[in-house]
Amino acid sequence: MVLIIVRLLSSVPKSSMLFLLGQPHSCLLSTKYLSVFMCVFAAIIFLFLGSVKGFSTKSEPCTYNKGSLCKPALANAAFSTLAFLLGALTSVLSGFLGMKIATYANARTTLEARKGVGKAFVTAFRSGAVMGFLLSANGLLVLYITIILFKLYYGDDWEGLYESITGYGLGGSSMALFGRVGGGIYTKAADVGADLVGKVERNIPEDDPRNPAVIADNVGDNVGDIAGMGSDLFGSYAESSCAALFVASISSFGISHDYTAMSFPLIISSVGIVVCLVTTLFATDLFEIKDVSEIEPSLKRQLVVSTILMTVGIAMVSFFALPSEFTLFNFGTEKAVKNWHLFFCVSIGLWAGLVIGYTTEYYTSNAYSPVQDVADSCKTGAATNVIFGLALGYKSVIIPIFAIAIAIYVSFSLAAMYGIAVAALGMLSTIATGLAIDAYGPISDNAGGIAEMAGMSHKIRERTDALDAAGNTTAAIGKGFAIGSAALVSLALFGAFVSRAGIKTVDVLTPKVFIGLIVGAMLPYWFSAMTMKSVGSAALKMVEEVRRQFNTIPGLMEGRAKPDYANCVKISTDASLREMIPPGALVMLTPLIAGTLFGVETLAGVLAGSLVSGVQVAISASNTGGAWDNAKKYIEAGASEHAKTLGPKGSDAHKAAVIGDTIGDPLKDTSGPSLNILIKLMAVESLVFAPFFAAHGGLLFKYL
Amino acid sequence: MVLIIVRLLSSVPKSSMLFLLGQPHSCLLSTKYLSVFMCVFAAIIFLFLGSVKGFSTKSEPCTYNKGSLCKPALANAAFSTLAFLLGALTSVLSGFLGMKIATYANARTTLEARKGVGKAFVTAFRSGAVMGFLLSANGLLVLYITIILFKLYYGDDWEGLYESITGYGLGGSSMALFGRVGGGIYTKAADVGADLVGKVERNIPEDDPRNPAVIADNVGDNVGDIAGMGSDLFGSYAESSCAALFVASISSFGISHDYTAMSFPLIISSVGIVVCLVTTLFATDLFEIKDVSEIEPSLKRQLVVSTILMTVGIAMVSFFALPSEFTLFNFGTEKAVKNWHLFFCVSIGLWAGLVIGYTTEYYTSNAYSPVQDVADSCKTGAATNVIFGLALGYKSVIIPIFAIAIAIYVSFSLAAMYGIAVAALGMLSTIATGLAIDAYGPISDNAGGIAEMAGMSHKIRERTDALDAAGNTTAAIGKGFAIGSAALVSLALFGAFVSRAGIKTVDVLTPKVFIGLIVGAMLPYWFSAMTMKSVGSAALKMVEEVRRQFNTIPGLMEGRAKPDYANCVKISTDASLREMIPPGALVMLTPLIAGTLFGVETLAGVLAGSLVSGVQVAISASNTGGAWDNAKKYIEAGASEHAKTLGPKGSDAHKAAVIGDTIGDPLKDTSGPSLNILIKLMAVESLVFAPFFAAHGGLLFKYL
Repeated sequence: MVLIIVRLLSSVPKSSMLFLLGQPHSCLLSTKYLSVFMCVFAAIIFLFLGSVKGFSTKSEPCTYNKGSLCKPALANAAFSTLAFLLGALTSVLSGFLGMKIATYANARTTLEARKGVGKAFVTAFRSGAVMGFLLSANGLLVLYITIILFKLYYGDDWEGLYESITGYGLGGSSMALFGRVGGGIYTKAADVGADLVGKVERNIPEDDPRNPAVIADNVGDNVGDIAGMGSDLFGSYAESSCAALFVASISSFGISHDYTAMSFPLIISSVGIVVCLVTTLFATDLFEIKDVSEIEPSLKRQLVVSTILMTVGIAMVSFFALPSEFTLFNFGTEKAVKNWHLFFCVSIGLWAGLVIGYTTEYYTSNAYSPVQDVADSCKTGAATNVIFGLALGYKSVIIPIFAIAIAIYVSFSLAAMYGIAVAALGMLSTIATGLAIDAYGPISDNAGGIAEMAGMSHKIRERTDALDAAGNTTAAIGKGFAIGSAALVSLALFGAFVSRAGIKTVDVLTPKVFIGLIVGAMLPYWFSAMTMKSVGSAALKMVEEVRRQFNTIPGLMEGRAKPDYANCVKISTDASLREMIPPGALVMLTPLIAGTLFGVETLAGVLAGSLVSGVQVAISASNTGGAWDNAKKYIEAGASEHAKTLGPKGSDAHKAAVIGDTIGDPLKDTSGPSLNILIKLMAVESLVFAPFFAAHGGLLFKYL
Repeated sequence: MVLIIVRLLSSVPKSSMLFLLGQPHSCLLSTKYLSVFMCVFAAIIFLFLGSVKGFSTKSEPCTYNKGSLCKPALANAAFSTLAFLLGALTSVLSGFLGMKIATYANARTTLEARKGVGKAFVTAFRSGAVMGFLLSANGLLVLYITIILFKLYYGDDWEGLYESITGYGLGGSSMALFGRVGGGIYTKAADVGADLVGKVERNIPEDDPRNPAVIADNVGDNVGDIAGMGSDLFGSYAESSCAALFVASISSFGISHDYTAMSFPLIISSVGIVVCLVTTLFATDLFEIKDVSEIEPSLKRQLVVSTILMTVGIAMVSFFALPSEFTLFNFGTEKAVKNWHLFFCVSIGLWAGLVIGYTTEYYTSNAYSPVQDVADSCKTGAATNVIFGLALGYKSVIIPIFAIAIAIYVSFSLAAMYGIAVAALGMLSTIATGLAIDAYGPISDNAGGIAEMAGMSHKIRERTDALDAAGNTTAAIGKGFAIGSAALVSLALFGAFVSRAGIKTVDVLTPKVFIGLIVGAMLPYWFSAMTMKSVGSAALKMVEEVRRQFNTIPGLMEGRAKPDYANCVKISTDASLREMIPPGALVMLTPLIAGTLFGVETLAGVLAGSLVSGVQVAISASNTGGAWDNAKKYIEAGASEHAKTLGPKGSDAHKAAVIGDTIGDPLKDTSGPSLNILIKLMAVESLVFAPFFAAHGGLLFKYL
């Protein structure tokens, strides 16, 4: 595995460090914030969980494995804190390496574009694959080592062991908060700010080096789409593994200590990496891209091939790694499960992911009628464009939700919460391919930026633009995957939380649960309001700075003077770090407040409500934004008779399309994908703090 | 009561029938569609409910009142069908009379505006009040008479009696589907179409008689805001009464047959009418409006006064009409309740309504910073305007949801589902005042239209504009009330459904319920996608027709020829009737399909999911639209230093604001308010069909 990654990495030689120009400041500042956050939150975990049994160091009788003695709660607190820190560090490392790879790869892609579109495609895709493999392998490796090391202390106490391990998921996911929310604000503040002054006021092309915000914009693509998406999917992956392991540990797997079966979640992920490696060869070695039109089908083929191969892989693992029949814990009762049940659970998650990916493509690619209709509505102005775009986003929710519902019904019925957790892992098992396809987008985007800034020939820019157009759709597919898996992961974590908190039913017909449900369903709106307004305000600041530079630096418009790129980078960095505090606090504090003041039933309601409502908001926001972006590109490209009647660039219809595209920026790159974090992070935090809430929670109802 | 209504009515003399010009066609066509729908659905009710016991005419043992014999299921089917038809006819009659009153009142308001703004205000408000009283009194009267008549057959069988009565709520609410969805499409197709050609392309003022769509636009205000809002609130009112009566009938009220206490819901509504009458005097007789600036405070004072007076009224009813202690049915268990518990239940619903109303005002009136910020964001173009507007809508959800959650918690904890039902009635008890304030808006709007079309002096137009500006905010308040009450009503109906279907718990941790929950949360998006796209397509048709008339009728622009108004009315009518079929089918068929194929547990999940998700979408859509509308008005009026920097009319910022306003039109007048119908209608339909689903439902799971 490592060897192959090294081979892939070596195909991406050291090249232009252009984009790292603005990063020392961002790095330093982010590192400071991250460290403070990690220390404070680690302390909270230790204190809250330690207080469950009053910091006693005595062993306690086990909850599920009756008759045995388990390690003291204080040990679980300490190991959970340690796991949290490990998860956080792994996530940060993955994000850092991902950005490193991407910034190495983009200039290389530009250079390869001189030789042809096929070569450039292979470079961009291979770099994306390096990142995908790095992330999935890294996540799996650290998790595996952590389990092995913790086992040295815990020995036979699997309940305590896997309870502590859930901290790993929390760590990974809380770093995703910085990546997704902070990264989303960073990238869109720079993008909107650069466009509003550069393209609209000064009439200079995109990525023109005279635009002071251009570096911030290009850095932003990496921060948002590479570090953000990477940490988001890493979080999903760590969380679904933890949820599956926790449920397994309190089931017969754990109690009868069948280590092979216990490692089933980890084995699925390992097989997934191998499958993705084979799949990658289809894109880079078995077929050759000769024409621009082959790029999108090739990327889509990756999804199908990996899904088919993985189904075979799952079948093998299910029949060889699992006992033919065993029992699972199901909220107080026991459930008999056969190994072929689990095959269906994992597979249905995997295939639901494919359905979501293809639906997303249908609604966001300008090869199909939905986006073309939106482009057509630009004829009557920006208002109809926005109305049709919003309607498209709403409509695009239908099929993914049915796919998720069917996956949930099948896996839930067959294997309770363990089924949901492994279904999530099934969807994420092809994560390396998904990330490769996704990271390909920003790499191509940046390659175009480099071509423009370096003043390379128009032909090269055209090739990178073609790569980028396909990347737009695949980025939307990646977002669809991320939100689909987030839904399954959250439900699995929710189930694990409920088991750990000792709740038997979450009955909507009780006031405590219902108010949790309706307030939980409101949280995605509150959160989106914050993130969208953050982007708006940060973009306005960026606009002022860019205007100031154009007005005060003599010779800037003529290309005789250099703009102060660093200042724009600083504005984006500062804005993203400052503006992510309120939404971050909303996510981190809600479970703590709901659990402590209102108790576990209300918290369960909040989690269910935010899950079922957040998924809809996230999917519709991402797809609306993607559709607007591609409707604009459809008019600009003018590839069909219909598109030509709407264009060319600068026509009224095109102006209306640009307005839609700008509105879509924060929807698709900030508030939409950040909601994944909202629903997952609240669930995993509740899971980690469940023993505390069960012991000391619900203060308000106790004293009222 | 009747005398006072007659007195108020007589103050609105017969006047211009201008707006009825286009209505014969609409009336005929709508009547045909309505009749067909009512007959078909009545047949479905009879067949489904009759089949519960195989159309047997034998009496059956009662479900709750053990040891007694209840009337056969076939009788319940027949009486439910009858109640459905009565509810539907009452709703249609209320809507028809409301529109009649409004069309009489608007010309009268224009005439009074010659004497001054105070006189015009009194006329407009009094006409609104006539409609409010008519609707609430009519609804109460028919319901009361129906109960008395049904009792002649049912005698001591209160279970059957109040089961049949629920048909009344279904009838009222299904007509609201036509009013809200059809009316919403009608009004916005005409509005958007008239504006896009008239204001933007031809540069003629709003309501100019040369615009062929102007009559359709003005008729639309009545169809959407008078008939739509009226039938919506009438539906809420009928449904919450039915839900309360049904729960009471299976509680000790019903079984020990305490008729006074049984009539508690009806008494609250009656007291509400008296309180609203007294409140109306504050606006029309006790204080006099001398200046434009006094209008909005006066309307807001109406809300506070009615709420305070009603609280006293509730206290009196609770302590005199109710036994001091009794038991209530609570999903299989019994719950002891004191009369002061019910006082709190009703009051908290009432006060939650006030909080929602005031929050809505804060977020949609341009007197406060949220709308001013949105107006300010127009400086950087339409895109930032839309981003800030969407963020505002999302944010405006927070306080109303907390208000609803607290109301639910208190009333649910104190008196289970009966508590929720009477809390909804509490919120609706001041419905007459609410409707008066709400109907005031379209009446003033039309008065302005008449002034413009009749070529009256500029001064009169200014006065009607001032009335209209206040009406915009109050319309938003009305929508806030409507959605708040819809949430409580749906929950009450949901509780009644669950009781009637014999479900003990609705546990999120079962696959059947969870898939219902997530699919239910998706339905508001599906529904909104349909309604928004309907408005878009219908508006495009209207644009073509208006353009055609301007191009083909010689002398139209010069005012020498008359446009073909009727053709535009026909387009709006046809579009609204045709386009409402898909969203209408979604609402009406979902409970039938979910209940028949997936069973009552999944259906319960669907209802809970669509409730908690739909409320958020509805509030945010209404408030976003209201905010954009008033941000535009803020720039146009230029009343402050800040507003002047953004204007005047025709500036870039103003153009951006107009785009936002147009986007907001379908959000605030079609898809947002229609969602009330979605969540209420699905719940009441489930309640009516509950015995059928419990007996024959869940086919898919049975045979799988």
